[in-house]
Amino acid sequence: MSLDVVIMAAGKGTRMKSARPKVLHTLAGRPLLQHVLEMSAGLGAERLITITGHGAELVETEMRAALPAAPLAFVRQEPQLGTGHAVQQAVPELADAGTTLILNGDVPLVRPQTARALIEACGGEKLVLLTVVLDDPTGYGRIVRGGVQGDRVLAIVEHKDATPEQRAINEGYTGMMAAPTAHLRRWLANLKNDNAQKEYYLTDIVAMAEAEGVPVVATIASGETEVLGVNSPVQLADLERRYQRQRADELMEAGVRLRDPARFDLRGELVCGRDVEIDVNCVFEGRVELGDEVRIGANCVLRNAKIAAGAVIHPFTHMDGEAAGIEVGEGALIGPFARLRPGAKLGAEVHIGNFVEVKNSTMAKGAKANHLAYLGDAVVGERVNYGAGSITANYDGANKHRTTIEADVHVGSNCVLVAPVTLGAGATIGGGSTITKDVPAGQLAVARGRQACLNGWTRPAKAPKKPAE
Amino acid sequence: MSLDVVIMAAGKGTRMKSARPKVLHTLAGRPLLQHVLEMSAGLGAERLITITGHGAELVETEMRAALPAAPLAFVRQEPQLGTGHAVQQAVPELADAGTTLILNGDVPLVRPQTARALIEACGGEKLVLLTVVLDDPTGYGRIVRGGVQGDRVLAIVEHKDATPEQRAINEGYTGMMAAPTAHLRRWLANLKNDNAQKEYYLTDIVAMAEAEGVPVVATIASGETEVLGVNSPVQLADLERRYQRQRADELMEAGVRLRDPARFDLRGELVCGRDVEIDVNCVFEGRVELGDEVRIGANCVLRNAKIAAGAVIHPFTHMDGEAAGIEVGEGALIGPFARLRPGAKLGAEVHIGNFVEVKNSTMAKGAKANHLAYLGDAVVGERVNYGAGSITANYDGANKHRTTIEADVHVGSNCVLVAPVTLGAGATIGGGSTITKDVPAGQLAVARGRQACLNGWTRPAKAPKKPAE
Amino acid sequence: MSLDVVIMAAGKGTRMKSARPKVLHTLAGRPLLQHVLEMSAGLGAERLITITGHGAELVETEMRAALPAAPLAFVRQEPQLGTGHAVQQAVPELADAGTTLILNGDVPLVRPQTARALIEACGGEKLVLLTVVLDDPTGYGRIVRGGVQGDRVLAIVEHKDATPEQRAINEGYTGMMAAPTAHLRRWLANLKNDNAQKEYYLTDIVAMAEAEGVPVVATIASGETEVLGVNSPVQLADLERRYQRQRADELMEAGVRLRDPARFDLRGELVCGRDVEIDVNCVFEGRVELGDEVRIGANCVLRNAKIAAGAVIHPFTHMDGEAAGIEVGEGALIGPFARLRPGAKLGAEVHIGNFVEVKNSTMAKGAKANHLAYLGDAVVGERVNYGAGSITANYDGANKHRTTIEADVHVGSNCVLVAPVTLGAGATIGGGSTITKDVPAGQLAVARGRQACLNGWTRPAKAPKKPAE
Repeated sequence: MSLDVVIMAAGKGTRMKSARPKVLHTLAGRPLLQHVLEMSAGLGAERLITITGHGAELVETEMRAALPAAPLAFVRQEPQLGTGHAVQQAVPELADAGTTLILNGDVPLVRPQTARALIEACGGEKLVLLTVVLDDPTGYGRIVRGGVQGDRVLAIVEHKDATPEQRAINEGYTGMMAAPTAHLRRWLANLKNDNAQKEYYLTDIVAMAEAEGVPVVATIASGETEVLGVNSPVQLADLERRYQRQRADELMEAGVRLRDPARFDLRGELVCGRDVEIDVNCVFEGRVELGDEVRIGANCVLRNAKIAAGAVIHPFTHMDGEAAGIEVGEGALIGPFARLRPGAKLGAEVHIGNFVEVKNSTMAKGAKANHLAYLGDAVVGERVNYGAGSITANYDGANKHRTTIEADVHVGSNCVLVAPVTLGAGATIGGGSTITKDVPAGQLAVARGRQACLNGWTRPAKAPKKPAE
Repeated sequence: MSLDVVIMAAGKGTRMKSARPKVLHTLAGRPLLQHVLEMSAGLGAERLITITGHGAELVETEMRAALPAAPLAFVRQEPQLGTGHAVQQAVPELADAGTTLILNGDVPLVRPQTARALIEACGGEKLVLLTVVLDDPTGYGRIVRGGVQGDRVLAIVEHKDATPEQRAINEGYTGMMAAPTAHLRRWLANLKNDNAQKEYYLTDIVAMAEAEGVPVVATIASGETEVLGVNSPVQLADLERRYQRQRADELMEAGVRLRDPARFDLRGELVCGRDVEIDVNCVFEGRVELGDEVRIGANCVLRNAKIAAGAVIHPFTHMDGEAAGIEVGEGALIGPFARLRPGAKLGAEVHIGNFVEVKNSTMAKGAKANHLAYLGDAVVGERVNYGAGSITANYDGANKHRTTIEADVHVGSNCVLVAPVTLGAGATIGGGSTITKDVPAGQLAVARGRQACLNGWTRPAKAPKKPAE
Repeated sequence: MSLDVVIMAAGKGTRMKSARPKVLHTLAGRPLLQHVLEMSAGLGAERLITITGHGAELVETEMRAALPAAPLAFVRQEPQLGTGHAVQQAVPELADAGTTLILNGDVPLVRPQTARALIEACGGEKLVLLTVVLDDPTGYGRIVRGGVQGDRVLAIVEHKDATPEQRAINEGYTGMMAAPTAHLRRWLANLKNDNAQKEYYLTDIVAMAEAEGVPVVATIASGETEVLGVNSPVQLADLERRYQRQRADELMEAGVRLRDPARFDLRGELVCGRDVEIDVNCVFEGRVELGDEVRIGANCVLRNAKIAAGAVIHPFTHMDGEAAGIEVGEGALIGPFARLRPGAKLGAEVHIGNFVEVKNSTMAKGAKANHLAYLGDAVVGERVNYGAGSITANYDGANKHRTTIEADVHVGSNCVLVAPVTLGAGATIGGGSTITKDVPAGQLAVARGRQACLNGWTRPAKAPKKPAE
């Protein structure tokens, strides 16, 4: 049966106090609307129709870029005359029959299971409201149930219109529903705006369905989190923490040990092997893979990186693989205060120590750069020892060049390797050397001044303070 | 009408287990008493009279330094014979008439609105108690109300003396009040210490007012936080977190996006433009300004810095502008692992990368220092590329000297620029050079040894382990 | 009277989803079982008998290594036929009389006071159950009390077998007890497995004691935390946070100021002097001592270090003393972004600045290494100024050598000191020098190339992009 998803995303979000449209604000690193679209894309819909308004072009551009393969459609709602009016704009894009799922672009965490339950309950025949049961449903429209088994919805009563008995109902309407598309088209066409606000209300279709004998039922959400909307930065932060706690719990249930689930942030995908340990205050972005028994120290920020089994990432390590990615081999030791950048491909048992930066370089098994060093655009062989303070001068001010350091080379301290340059296998580079020419295998290369001592030299004295002018 | 503020700050604070007087312990980076004095200074008082006792000299010295322009007065309470005795010490400093506001030096978060409400309710005529309504008022003196409209306070009943009915009262006395100064002088003079503790209780003036027909009323605080006192490090930490959550909420309500309001610390003033994003675990101290669309990465510590619109501060950036301040230009990229120190003035689109320190230096538009470098006492022109590992040797062991790097200079890797020295516009400095003399514009300067290779050299072998002795 | 402790530690812990046995998972850096053994070792027991099963060899090896001096015994339970069967395995190791305390290897936080209360209540005569009173005891076996004063336990009723009245009992059995050893031997021998699971239940001894007239009583735990078991990573993380909050509270009650007790981790022992301040998000491991008025900045990770009075540790400092330890002298300033490694012994007023690493080196009073430097295997005299970017080349590729820098030496920027080498007192090393030979006291040593300028040199131009192939 044909499925269309309509997502309401036209609102300005005044309380966000932002130049960006509300649905483009990010939760876990992705726009709110993107969460809804990605979840919806997994439902097998024919079309994902987003109703835009404020910032429509930006919304459309960013979402097309984020989901290039999804069957996206965008329709404008201008002016904005209510929720019913919003969905009316989508009618030209809807199929003739089947089911239409109506979601909100600022309610990012609806679970796919819940969406599927709505679609299934609809079956192209019933009007299905997504509801939620809450200890305190203040502000929610209340679900008045009836029917022989109490499984029919008779009405949604706005909080302000509810009687004391109705206010005691703890089931509220979430603003989301699934409707038979053919009926929905007809109902939308019949909406009236004869109310104080002169708006077209989507919820008026409940009475139409009732009047026509189309069953109106409800699917109850799993909890509050998946139906919470974002109207302000405070609500956004609250939902962010709920989302992160859910991710932390999922990972822990899969066996990952988190030292503090309240200090864990995942903005993307984290794939973990067995017996992974993650210390406090780490942030994961993009796609990160951690092999068996990987240990991540406190205060690490990792993005787009693949870390093999047994590697230990010490505290204060920053990895950002961007598009090229980062690979860390088995049993490698990285950090503290290490920075890995795109294209860092480190083999097994590589050691990267403090204040070391590696960019677009491969390091073979057992190579080490333990202190205060930069490796960029380099190929480093097995067992190379890259000295403290040494730098690959890979940029001549205009172009980037490669440095090749073959196996078993020992680079001394504070060397400069002016690329393009090759250090042959087993070569040794004396400390403080600037190497501009290739070094043959096995040779010692030195490029530095001769040491001279000057006796009788007097160290500068502290200048007297100038009088105030 | 004349306003005096009396602040009780004589207590030792034994439970703090500290050598410092309690009121000098810091919340959000400032002493508890300073919070009270700063709030009070905004009320337009004639005099802010602090009653000191334990550590009186230190309290006086630190507060005079912190609020040099405020009308501070200090009086000693020695020995300490109760709250009434404390306020008695202030009498010589009080005006003859008007209103006296009595606050506690260890209750740091009283809101100015609340203080103003007390003063206004007093109007130099009524005795106004600051009260608080709590779910659990255990330990608080209970407010027994009466009068035709229940707006009069008949008595404060100590918790231990209260009947079960009185204990059910959920309005408690906070220890703070506003009193007509003329009445207060008379009441204080009539206080008696005929009680078990032989102390003079300030609250005895309630009965005196009642007896004289002076109306006794109450102003209810906005909530518990503003009336909480600090008696122990646990209470201090609790109040710190409440304070920080308030600041986080205020910023979010103004549109700032905080990824985790529970991991945010503000110890000073944070002024934010539109669409500012602050990632987890950041600390702001002193005065920090963030322009529109500034993004602050995780785990940054920023103090006394002004960051222009569109700048991106990557994780693990430390800025401390101290008195000289720090400026970061529009669209600049800073970090990760960057350290900016006092007098770092960075222009638009400047890039400061990992393990780079900048102190007392200006960098013009588009200049870059991306890796492992130190810039101190330097003037850096537009588009300069300052190589990895390069250092300004600004200190000759006695004096600091300046380095001038004109526009479009390219400084290679691991260079030393021995100040005072000027690199002319467009000059290029070869990697590994130690530059001690000025370099003319457009020239290439090199100062390094010639590369020599030695064949047949044997790398040292691992020394055999010495036998245990 | 003889005391034996039996610790049940045979379970696999399937929900941990780990290759390691459950009791070896760590809380606050130590295995769960180690917590129990360490607490038990303080009770003066004759023998600490651990019942092992899954991963028995690993458990035994790790615990023997962790507690080499404790009277450990290990017995295997294979197959695992219930709690009674587990304790039966310990019988050959038990004394003939006295008291046997039965604990769980996955309940790590039982307080020694509680254990002692159980032992005392038993006195070799009574069967004493450890119970806990909970708001919600769902899942716990309920304690049915009786006797004249309600101080006798009549039965433990499993949650699933409990009547509504019994379910209303809020006292639950924790799985731990103390028993008279002689009785316990007899009761264990009489256990039957005539139940659905065909298991031997330890709790069946309650009925045996009742039948024999041996008093059965209960000791109530101080709270839930000390009786919580760990069955999953979620429970482990929850208990970790409870443990850390307890440690934070203890330190604060002793006068330590923590800026955020929810962002504090102690995995070992932290000894603090007076007026110590610890900023947010710090981690302490091993044994750390902080002298009076030490201040620890945000985001520090410290392990096995001793920091003297008045030292200030700036944010993002990492110290790991491993076995050799670290010492920081009075009034020293360390960080931000400093890394101290094993054997760093810093004197009074030493300054270690950003991106500086110190390993196995002593620095005398007032010595400074403020920027981007490495000191390894060095002895540094008083008032030495060690320049930015300078490196001790202590490793020749095979052996480590020492560097000696005598008092008042000034080492310029980006120097390399090739060890073994000695810089005599008051010597000055020119910036960019590679020093391979000793420098006499008071002399200036320079080892670098002469500066040459090349006019007419053309900087490389950006290579044209290659056409796509």
